[in-house]
Amino acid sequence: MMIADSDPNPPNTCTCCLPRRGFLRGLAGGGVAALAAQSASAQAQPVAERASYTGLVIDCHGHYTTEPPTMLTWRKRQIDAINDPAQSPAPSSLTVSDDEVRASVADRQVKLQTARGISLALFSPRAGGMGHHIGNARTSRDWSIVSNDMIHRVATLMPRNFVGVCQLPQSPGVSPKNCTAELERCVRELGFVGCNVNPDPSGGYWTDPPLSDRFWYPLWEKMVELDVPGMVHVSASANPNFHATGAHYMNGDTTAFMQFVTSDLFKDFPTLRLIIPHGGGAVPYHWGRYRGLAQDLKRPPISELMRNVFFDTCVYHQPGIDLLLKVVPTDNVLFASEMVGAVNGIDPETGYAFDDTKRYVEAAAIPDADRAKIFARNALRIYPRLAGRLTAAGVMP
Amino acid sequence: MMIADSDPNPPNTCTCCLPRRGFLRGLAGGGVAALAAQSASAQAQPVAERASYTGLVIDCHGHYTTEPPTMLTWRKRQIDAINDPAQSPAPSSLTVSDDEVRASVADRQVKLQTARGISLALFSPRAGGMGHHIGNARTSRDWSIVSNDMIHRVATLMPRNFVGVCQLPQSPGVSPKNCTAELERCVRELGFVGCNVNPDPSGGYWTDPPLSDRFWYPLWEKMVELDVPGMVHVSASANPNFHATGAHYMNGDTTAFMQFVTSDLFKDFPTLRLIIPHGGGAVPYHWGRYRGLAQDLKRPPISELMRNVFFDTCVYHQPGIDLLLKVVPTDNVLFASEMVGAVNGIDPETGYAFDDTKRYVEAAAIPDADRAKIFARNALRIYPRLAGRLTAAGVMP
Repeated sequence: MMIADSDPNPPNTCTCCLPRRGFLRGLAGGGVAALAAQSASAQAQPVAERASYTGLVIDCHGHYTTEPPTMLTWRKRQIDAINDPAQSPAPSSLTVSDDEVRASVADRQVKLQTARGISLALFSPRAGGMGHHIGNARTSRDWSIVSNDMIHRVATLMPRNFVGVCQLPQSPGVSPKNCTAELERCVRELGFVGCNVNPDPSGGYWTDPPLSDRFWYPLWEKMVELDVPGMVHVSASANPNFHATGAHYMNGDTTAFMQFVTSDLFKDFPTLRLIIPHGGGAVPYHWGRYRGLAQDLKRPPISELMRNVFFDTCVYHQPGIDLLLKVVPTDNVLFASEMVGAVNGIDPETGYAFDDTKRYVEAAAIPDADRAKIFARNALRIYPRLAGRLTAAGVMP
Repeated sequence: MMIADSDPNPPNTCTCCLPRRGFLRGLAGGGVAALAAQSASAQAQPVAERASYTGLVIDCHGHYTTEPPTMLTWRKRQIDAINDPAQSPAPSSLTVSDDEVRASVADRQVKLQTARGISLALFSPRAGGMGHHIGNARTSRDWSIVSNDMIHRVATLMPRNFVGVCQLPQSPGVSPKNCTAELERCVRELGFVGCNVNPDPSGGYWTDPPLSDRFWYPLWEKMVELDVPGMVHVSASANPNFHATGAHYMNGDTTAFMQFVTSDLFKDFPTLRLIIPHGGGAVPYHWGRYRGLAQDLKRPPISELMRNVFFDTCVYHQPGIDLLLKVVPTDNVLFASEMVGAVNGIDPETGYAFDDTKRYVEAAAIPDADRAKIFARNALRIYPRLAGRLTAAGVMP
């Protein structure tokens, strides 16, 4: 059992990964109110004059960072009971009304989607809240059920705005085989279209094997069977060296890519699809290094990885998006904003929200046909279960 | 004591970080021969037609990756004796002739410097060879003395081509105070102008405190007193999750920068100067994220860090260098190639060596005055002891 007793990072207003101290502080509700106030100016900016593409815009990376307070209370009770499992609350004990669920996203995610012209989000539990390093396998199982059920509530009540992506009940040192039942439940029973896979359940100590190790194969097998992709996304950092959204996230992304470069994972799973978020960490910026390392190491060229590996557009400035779109093939880039997430403020250099990534993609010097792929077509291809959900919701014919 | 018994990474021809298995294999000399053959085509490419800047070109990031075999034999003997310290060789027991020292760099670093138009390199021991996670404080002390003395030999025999930068005798869990004597010896007695600081002496498990912790203050105090900068550079990875040059290096860079964003380190040490290598890891690509995080966290804007933090140009493709030079102030970029280092091959897309970073800087759309800063002026400012060395060597008036 690994629990960070103190917040390893300085004061952090991030609501995506919310370190433990902030996480508990967030129960008081103050953080949510402050963010709501901050968002007012973000959404006030018009975007219409820049938009040329008017089709579907799928944000493949949204987290439920505005959970109802009762959900966070449930988690606090669970963590408090870690040394006394008999006191642990049952997943079924959480009760949240439909109105509370609607209200939890109405003023933030839905409002920002409307303001920015985003059709919908592939929506998963707060990444930093997964906290796989806390407690044991049962802790993670119960918390995953609670978290995924809440995502299902959101997606069921607002099927035009949200489609579910699940958290997995990972736990350090425990075989990912224990995740397959919850993944199957989420996909077959709740209609989810993908999952998040934490490459470091230890929360910054990297004590489990690389993603290419056979340790992970039962999970890959189930994902292939269900034909759902995974986003490789770490959770909170319990290591004081790593700020969550400023270091641990980027490191997780970079590390995973190099594990793919140096392994035969996709030879064993030719149809497995993994999305590396946050624009791929350091990878596109160092595209030449990775091409060169693959060559030096006598590995296949990294272009071969592009059958299985994809990057999102969570890069919060124009030069970064321009670089991403210059070096990574268009078919491998998925629009995403990580909204409401890692960075919440307005960029004083542009007057727009840092995480309004749609603006950067719109301003990029690429053909409109590429923009259509990035905004929607790639997501529909990589998440094959998505089209059915959108048709059922009346979003697509 | 932590020793990797097996190579955590797949076959790796990198000579900068040389994992342990390769490190020992390198003793046979085969790797050096293969690299020499590979370099022949790299240096055959003319650069003259692109060069407009004709002044001094200082490569601030070169490693001694072509050590004489007897030096590697010494290290092997030391590692073999870790459990029997009485058998550990004394640093003074290593004997290498001047001719061997000259020959060790003549066919690689010196030849490539000449071919590419690089005047000289700030030269430090092989980064991956520092191996701070191996053995204990005494192991690191003896190995640092041997390594730094060899750098001194190179710099003394070829003072127009090489200026010394030292390795520090770090060891996991041991106060960096134990590094100050070796740093002082290298700077005051051997004429070195800087040092490499490993932010993770554990080799990929990140068990020591962040660089902003008071744990590190005795080292910062000595660096300030001596007025030498440090390059924040990890060593080999003993963690199978992290490929050294493809993940651990990038992660170390990204992690260190975020430690600076979230701390008051430079308030306490306003004249301390730290260089983040490999183009700053993921940082320039995510410049918007870091500006936004600093703002959300109520930290000073990252522009304030630019008094103390610098980035090198070890980014191995044109779009990466273009992005670096677009977002990072020119005064904060130092030319470097990491040659002979992380990537050794020829880029099939350009026909030139991946690590011929001078070509990218020459092709970048920046004023020549900026190029002069990047190639030489910034290094002379940030390494104040450098000018004296170059004047003594007849490189500068």
